[in-house]
Amino acid sequence: MAKLTSRSEDYSKWYNELVVKADLAENSGVRGCMVIKPYGYAIWEKMRDELDRKFKETGHQNAYFPIFIPKSYFEAEEKNAEGFAKECAVVTHYRLKTDPDNPQKLVVDPEAKLEEELIVRPTSEAIIWSTYKNWIQSYRDLPILINQWANVVRWEMRTRLFLRTAEFLWQEGHTAHATKAEAIEETEKMLEVYADFAENFLAVPVIRGYKTPSERFAGAEETYCIEAMMQDGKALQAGTSHFLGQNFSEAFDVKFTNKEGKQELAWATSWGVSTRLMGALIMAHSDDNGLVLPPKLAPIQVVIVPIFKGEEQLKQISEVALALQAKLRAKGISVKFDDDDQNKPGWKFAEYELKGVPVRIAMGARDLENKTVEVARRDNLTKEVQPLEGIENYIEELLKTIQNDIYAKALNFRNENITEVNSYEEFKQVLEEKGGFISAHWDGTAEEEEQIKNETKATIRCIPLDAKEEEGVSLISGKPSRRRVIFAKAY
Amino acid sequence: MAKLTSRSEDYSKWYNELVVKADLAENSGVRGCMVIKPYGYAIWEKMRDELDRKFKETGHQNAYFPIFIPKSYFEAEEKNAEGFAKECAVVTHYRLKTDPDNPQKLVVDPEAKLEEELIVRPTSEAIIWSTYKNWIQSYRDLPILINQWANVVRWEMRTRLFLRTAEFLWQEGHTAHATKAEAIEETEKMLEVYADFAENFLAVPVIRGYKTPSERFAGAEETYCIEAMMQDGKALQAGTSHFLGQNFSEAFDVKFTNKEGKQELAWATSWGVSTRLMGALIMAHSDDNGLVLPPKLAPIQVVIVPIFKGEEQLKQISEVALALQAKLRAKGISVKFDDDDQNKPGWKFAEYELKGVPVRIAMGARDLENKTVEVARRDNLTKEVQPLEGIENYIEELLKTIQNDIYAKALNFRNENITEVNSYEEFKQVLEEKGGFISAHWDGTAEEEEQIKNETKATIRCIPLDAKEEEGVSLISGKPSRRRVIFAKAY
Repeated sequence: MAKLTSRSEDYSKWYNELVVKADLAENSGVRGCMVIKPYGYAIWEKMRDELDRKFKETGHQNAYFPIFIPKSYFEAEEKNAEGFAKECAVVTHYRLKTDPDNPQKLVVDPEAKLEEELIVRPTSEAIIWSTYKNWIQSYRDLPILINQWANVVRWEMRTRLFLRTAEFLWQEGHTAHATKAEAIEETEKMLEVYADFAENFLAVPVIRGYKTPSERFAGAEETYCIEAMMQDGKALQAGTSHFLGQNFSEAFDVKFTNKEGKQELAWATSWGVSTRLMGALIMAHSDDNGLVLPPKLAPIQVVIVPIFKGEEQLKQISEVALALQAKLRAKGISVKFDDDDQNKPGWKFAEYELKGVPVRIAMGARDLENKTVEVARRDNLTKEVQPLEGIENYIEELLKTIQNDIYAKALNFRNENITEVNSYEEFKQVLEEKGGFISAHWDGTAEEEEQIKNETKATIRCIPLDAKEEEGVSLISGKPSRRRVIFAKAY
Repeated sequence: MAKLTSRSEDYSKWYNELVVKADLAENSGVRGCMVIKPYGYAIWEKMRDELDRKFKETGHQNAYFPIFIPKSYFEAEEKNAEGFAKECAVVTHYRLKTDPDNPQKLVVDPEAKLEEELIVRPTSEAIIWSTYKNWIQSYRDLPILINQWANVVRWEMRTRLFLRTAEFLWQEGHTAHATKAEAIEETEKMLEVYADFAENFLAVPVIRGYKTPSERFAGAEETYCIEAMMQDGKALQAGTSHFLGQNFSEAFDVKFTNKEGKQELAWATSWGVSTRLMGALIMAHSDDNGLVLPPKLAPIQVVIVPIFKGEEQLKQISEVALALQAKLRAKGISVKFDDDDQNKPGWKFAEYELKGVPVRIAMGARDLENKTVEVARRDNLTKEVQPLEGIENYIEELLKTIQNDIYAKALNFRNENITEVNSYEEFKQVLEEKGGFISAHWDGTAEEEEQIKNETKATIRCIPLDAKEEEGVSLISGKPSRRRVIFAKAY
């Protein structure tokens, strides 16, 4: 198995190779669309199940809306959402026919042209709010707290596996409320659900904040976000939660009768995370040997590798290994016992390192004699010999420790790579030499933001929710500022 | 709440009304596409989770393939699959732009025309087998046992909620094997997974069989199916499992080196069930009062309705009800305590009947005194007073009884409505007067099958797997036949 390109050599190449070699995903024959392979999909399923549990716990229900959105729906919305992406897949016909000139070929049947073009959903506000119109008459119909798991399509020109693909999988929450305060509360609640998920499940520390007006979702009054730092110091937006005000209820005329009998427009939120999180997970933790998976996400948490010569030894080791496997499974730990005799232990060690299996247990003839096992941690690559007796309890605790350690390591790295600067010169120097996140004052104008972006490629990732009040002056205009914002280059 | 149209009055109207009134689904603003509402989606989720568990238990993994399939892939496949449906959604462009003549309007950007049209997947054999080509080199790469949960689109002209929609949700298994025998074994195994699921989870009895050549999936060598009887006597195909032979491996050149070092084409299967099962579920069990849900599928299994006058009584009942709710939940039973004071008990009773909640517990002031509750079954509409003490155990058993009784009722109905006939005259008479399934001899020709279909609208639903050998003569040609097949009108 050829080694991965190292991160220091070429971070981007390392990422691409890792995604493919670890069997997470690959490019398909369809431009910009990926195939999510079983191992990658198993990780995504774990993310999805945990998020779904959290959504239900906070009172949301799943539903499903059409994949197609008539073009005119975007025109209704366009009044509010000038900047809405127009790069999308457009369905214009509904039939193929055999080419009259060549019976081996298929052609689009010109007689099967749609009266109105259909857009493959890039996001579902339009179709959902056109539906909510019929569901909402009275304040008693509110709130509506719905989530959808779906595929969406945005015609991206430059794509990268998981990070930016034409089709991707995501969830999109769409809620309707009777009051502005309740909608804002929902927006903030879901941001916290995402942040908690990122930190305690993905082990990825995030900064909770909100976007500047120029970085907002088109149609949103406020876009909250969580921003994570990758190992190359770049930022990755890991989730967004939008307070949409009354923009969509106005566009689709969604009114309700309030308690006082008056007609009002409903208040909206939407929030989503996508398969992009797979990219965040990979780039936050993995190393030059392959994936590093937090135990909560690992499809296989423990692998047992027998070290044997001949069938008799394998039989003896298997007996002990299978008993241990049963004990671990009884604790809800997913275990694989790899007794394949085609591949050597060294090959297996490398393979499970590549796949990010958090704990490897090796068992040889001497271990049998001594009643021990060798336990190796994937995250820090340490090994130790442990007594076999009670090892299942040790492993159970070790998995928790690994989960915490992976988070602590990422948090430490993130904190070490946030730099406060107080001049534009310093800003450019830090960005050039150290990278990472830069905490700096900004005058609040789109002009300064734009200039910094054009000159340095760094954007304002967010205005942190927990930013403390602090007197300062902005980087370029020198105008007074009362709190710092986070700049970074971003994925 | 207006009553449903009765089944005897207009079965089809009853079905449509029920789907909408029970909040399962509704038509959307997009032709032929439905909105699956939260209550309907919650039932679908239960189906999905149970099937997913069964797929994994039988060694399958989930993955995800692109929604778009380049037109040329169908041309490769077309050589084998002459009859493949060409009614599909065709993406021809990838951008909208503002109409230069009217800034309120969007138009397709003619400069953003795709070089090759993309088809929104009607089924994924083509994209998946084009991918498998890269995954399969040696017999060691086999079998590949993959399932995908996805949305698919078929441009249907006449649509009905759940039963036939342009977009629907489904799962599609696609497996690759080294031998024909193994592929056939897989095909049969998955048919049995579906049959077991239908009978023991949906409580819908099914006939396991295979299709005649003219009813086969295009590209299949053998299509196995499960056929269920609806309450109007019509058949509904509830799942199919296809043995695809080497058709797709040939079309996409998927060869592997076998143990003897020779190149061979891989053997394929595919199998799927869809949101159509929602239609089967509804039409198999429900009645003129609304849904009847088997407990294993019911999002709410037990509803507790307090019968009270004034807040003080509600408070006393609530205390007992919440304690019971906790006990039931501890048993894994989903319970709703409906203490809403806006709606009267009678309204609630009708509402939960409409929604198919299997068990209703009513609790009034007298029940408190007597330490009793009133337990009502949704399936047979019976009521009884039971002691409160230990009621949670009673309910737990009752849910199992209801699940079994619903199945037994459907099985009994199905069996009573399968009629053996021995002449075409009898066939037409039974079909006209009684309906249901007709078990009859057939000469094995497409001609006879076609004639019967044209003259009676009944098709051969399947050749049952368990049909016993029996000498007979076919309905029209009078040729000898050795076993009976099942005819019926079908959804």
